[in-house]
Amino acid sequence: MSDYRDLWQSLNMDLERHDLLCAALPSLYEEVYLNQPGRPQGMNYFNAVIAEIHGMRVAELAEHRKQGGKVFGTFCVFVPTEIIRAAGGVAIGLCGGSQFWVPDGEKVLPRTVCPLIKASVGAKISRTCPYFESSDMLVGETTCDDKKKAWEILNEYIPTYVMELPQMKREKDRQAWIEEVGIFKGTVEKITGKKIEREHLREAIRVENAKRKALKRLYSFRKNDPVPISGKDALLVTQIAFYDDPQRFVERTEELCSELEERVTSGYGVFKNGAPRIVIAGSPQAIPNWKLHHLIETSGAVVVCEETCTGTRYFEHLVQEEGETLEELLVNLANRYFQINCACFTPNHERVEDILRLVHEYRADGVIHYNLSFCQPYSIEAARVEKALKAKGIPCLRIETDYSEEDIEQIRTRIEAFLEVVR
Amino acid sequence: MSDYRDLWQSLNMDLERHDLLCAALPSLYEEVYLNQPGRPQGMNYFNAVIAEIHGMRVAELAEHRKQGGKVFGTFCVFVPTEIIRAAGGVAIGLCGGSQFWVPDGEKVLPRTVCPLIKASVGAKISRTCPYFESSDMLVGETTCDDKKKAWEILNEYIPTYVMELPQMKREKDRQAWIEEVGIFKGTVEKITGKKIEREHLREAIRVENAKRKALKRLYSFRKNDPVPISGKDALLVTQIAFYDDPQRFVERTEELCSELEERVTSGYGVFKNGAPRIVIAGSPQAIPNWKLHHLIETSGAVVVCEETCTGTRYFEHLVQEEGETLEELLVNLANRYFQINCACFTPNHERVEDILRLVHEYRADGVIHYNLSFCQPYSIEAARVEKALKAKGIPCLRIETDYSEEDIEQIRTRIEAFLEVVR
Repeated sequence: MSDYRDLWQSLNMDLERHDLLCAALPSLYEEVYLNQPGRPQGMNYFNAVIAEIHGMRVAELAEHRKQGGKVFGTFCVFVPTEIIRAAGGVAIGLCGGSQFWVPDGEKVLPRTVCPLIKASVGAKISRTCPYFESSDMLVGETTCDDKKKAWEILNEYIPTYVMELPQMKREKDRQAWIEEVGIFKGTVEKITGKKIEREHLREAIRVENAKRKALKRLYSFRKNDPVPISGKDALLVTQIAFYDDPQRFVERTEELCSELEERVTSGYGVFKNGAPRIVIAGSPQAIPNWKLHHLIETSGAVVVCEETCTGTRYFEHLVQEEGETLEELLVNLANRYFQINCACFTPNHERVEDILRLVHEYRADGVIHYNLSFCQPYSIEAARVEKALKAKGIPCLRIETDYSEEDIEQIRTRIEAFLEVVR
Repeated sequence: MSDYRDLWQSLNMDLERHDLLCAALPSLYEEVYLNQPGRPQGMNYFNAVIAEIHGMRVAELAEHRKQGGKVFGTFCVFVPTEIIRAAGGVAIGLCGGSQFWVPDGEKVLPRTVCPLIKASVGAKISRTCPYFESSDMLVGETTCDDKKKAWEILNEYIPTYVMELPQMKREKDRQAWIEEVGIFKGTVEKITGKKIEREHLREAIRVENAKRKALKRLYSFRKNDPVPISGKDALLVTQIAFYDDPQRFVERTEELCSELEERVTSGYGVFKNGAPRIVIAGSPQAIPNWKLHHLIETSGAVVVCEETCTGTRYFEHLVQEEGETLEELLVNLANRYFQINCACFTPNHERVEDILRLVHEYRADGVIHYNLSFCQPYSIEAARVEKALKAKGIPCLRIETDYSEEDIEQIRTRIEAFLEVVR
């Protein structure tokens, strides 16, 4: 990584502890990513993004802020980033995926909180994540109990705005969500000092839709057998989508897709034909949480799709771009986000249907339902998912784990036993 | 207990397992309740209610249903029982407080769910709770993740209606709640087949307010030193309020209060003057969860108030009885419930203010913040409560526990150490 120490210092980071955090990533990345055989050339860009994980993009944010721009840190696929972009702001996904931050999170949160939230809070209070330190405001939402209460703690460190997501999906709730998106627009305008006009929002929708289309295209190649790209690589691309510059991201992802298209044409795969194909369904996987994918893909199977917030829930639906007025576009925007089927809703039958559909579309042999420890909504909903899959004769394995390495061999054994069934 | 086997059989209960459940209560009740010295005579009624816990009231419900009446099982202080009563229905609080039901709950819920929810679900699926079996419909709400998802499971066994409680307390949310209360009214009218008129609702409000006033009066005597009633006895009265006939309950509680009034006049107390006075704040305590109170009151201290759903959150606010129209009364009703400060809201500063106020009003020496294991909202909010109390020099002990007996001696040791500080 180039020398960004001055930059980090200017962000008032804890440099000593940050060095410890950064020291661990290269060897992990080499083991999990660089060692994979037959990776697409197009992954080089994403390798470079990881090599510069706390550098290049952070420098861009600093430059943006120097020009008077604002940075909004987000944690959830329900936050309409189009509004931030339309007001000239930059949205950065902040979810923490490293065990490094968990002990700091546990200083202010009970142990029985999901590792993603503990890591996110820990990243902030330890001052070791330059993205947190580059944010002018955090944008939380009321998706789960743990997050809802964590915002109150984060708000003691940095202004944390909370969007109220309804918990049901009736027409009344859709209307409430539309109103909530409008209130968020007002807040973003106030913070950025920029009034959002129809054309700004329309352009922002186009940019975000382009990102979604690129990811949809990327995922479409995973429907082939053999797969031209590993599940780990596809996951990485999606993870990077949350904080990279959207236009550059789209360009590079489309380049990667063209390469994958050629691979499909020529029948080239990174896993042998007939390798067991797995859909992951459940909790989000934030960088560098590649644990489950790595275990699966070093056990002879391949992950072909993620029904998660770092998978299809992030990009499956496009925003309708046609709209005569700003208000119409805001309704389009709210409607798009309200289609996401998260376990935070009750009832949430549609998510089960999504999983069944994805198994079919991606020609999967089985599903691993994944939930982060203490992620109650997904943990409880797992039983319903498993039941629906079993009714269709689709094998399902439920795995609950955190960011630690202690259970790795136990999970590997369970995955290997599961693959015996799937084969 | 009289012989209610025919009644239980008619409810399709598992009689064999129900016998096991019932067998444990008398000795527990004797140890925890009957052994207390100097109990008020007025507690005899409540002793009788417990002695007949699955009998007398269940027979009343059966009679009510025979006459065409409906029974609604509830789980939360946010459900406006006035609406049920106004439509000729009976509301019964169903929260499970026994470890007996936990293993059955764990058949369909993860272990990492709070014991109250596991026990409630377990009570239903084991067919060992006559109140569940007497219910025509359950009424859930979206207060926490675990409950929200548990309703979906319970709905597979019995029709379970869900009220959406907003997660914030802005004017927009209050309006949404008013609307939600109106929708609930429609549902209850449909189930009971009875249209609610202004006079029905007004009368129901009066009845429920009378219950609240009786409990407020009861609690007022606990502000005295010495206290004329133990915390355990006061807790029991509140717990019984959730399912007893309201009119009889008020009568008997007012009788008890008159006796307590005399005791206060004569200076008679059940704990010696100057015994450390403790406020409990946090998660609800359902029958027979008397664990924490019993530990405190057998360690030389007395519980003087509960800032819980089985305490002040249940009865502190009255519904405004004046209203020209049905709609006005419905707004009054919604407004009253929306004042409750539950940790499910964000932000929730008002709850901290409530606790500080109660410590002052009840002349408490310290607070024990209690949360059921995996009750995330209260568990996370505990840190904020503790901080606010410390800032005022009020000792605070945080206890997290479930329904099991394994940690009893450990908790006793912690309470004893805490009382050293408090004294």
